[in-house]
Amino acid sequence: MNPIGFIRSPFSNLEGMPIQPTGAAGVQGRVELLPEYRAGLKDIEGFSHLILLYLFHRSSGFQLDVVPFLDNQPRGLFATRAPRRPNPIGLSIVRLDSVENGILHVQDVDILDGTPLLDIKPYVPVFDRRDQVRTGWLEQSGNAVAAQKSDSRFVAA
Amino acid sequence: MNPIGFIRSPFSNLEGMPIQPTGAAGVQGRVELLPEYRAGLKDIEGFSHLILLYLFHRSSGFQLDVVPFLDNQPRGLFATRAPRRPNPIGLSIVRLDSVENGILHVQDVDILDGTPLLDIKPYVPVFDRRDQVRTGWLEQSGNAVAAQKSDSRFVAA
Repeated sequence: MNPIGFIRSPFSNLEGMPIQPTGAAGVQGRVELLPEYRAGLKDIEGFSHLILLYLFHRSSGFQLDVVPFLDNQPRGLFATRAPRRPNPIGLSIVRLDSVENGILHVQDVDILDGTPLLDIKPYVPVFDRRDQVRTGWLEQSGNAVAAQKSDSRFVAA
Repeated sequence: MNPIGFIRSPFSNLEGMPIQPTGAAGVQGRVELLPEYRAGLKDIEGFSHLILLYLFHRSSGFQLDVVPFLDNQPRGLFATRAPRRPNPIGLSIVRLDSVENGILHVQDVDILDGTPLLDIKPYVPVFDRRDQVRTGWLEQSGNAVAAQKSDSRFVAA
């Protein structure tokens, strides 16, 4: 796995960063593809939302139970979105504003500045959207996610 | 990146496989975590849907423009979900039926049997669902995706 580009955002530190795109509404950023991949952006401007897969490059190692930002007790790692994972791949859905010279201008960015990008996929409701969903322990935390900010608990030691 | 487990499904070949979970409604499969990661499954049974990230292990190489299954003209790779990508990571949302001894019984599986699993994330609408979405060239193909099957065009040479 090698980066195909880098993500630019206003967030240079985990502390204070929104933990999900819905908490980052309107936050602007850029996806800068390396020149050799830019031809793959053709037709992307027709999509309003993109799935970004990226490396949690500032997290290292993992534990199989973690206390998530939205809870006060340990949960199984795979029942959380915590960044310290065996394969530290992050996933965010961002809004695409425009494409210019291989650079995507995006919104709702909950990603650290300088994050290595692994893949871009178009967000397609018929593939990616589910209704009537149960969300386990997260149901207790209600809508707190929109206001919740990150802290340093997942920073690499 | 190392597999944390393997995905089991009825599909041993790309030919005839549904191309997305919505075309694989009711298809049953299993996610078998390696023993050393199973403790991370705690609390996952509360979630009805999971995001699986996995390796497109039967695809190799990539081209920056591809003729997708749902179209008859070349599109930019990053405006498609084609498996041959610079970082060949697949993403599917599956329905979780039950958890038993580190094995997840899932439905809506559009994934090849034996696929190496990279990560499991809980599907959380407030993070992952978007409304009022534009889907570019895919809008012309309407609901054909549910019926569309794979063929051999992305098989490794």
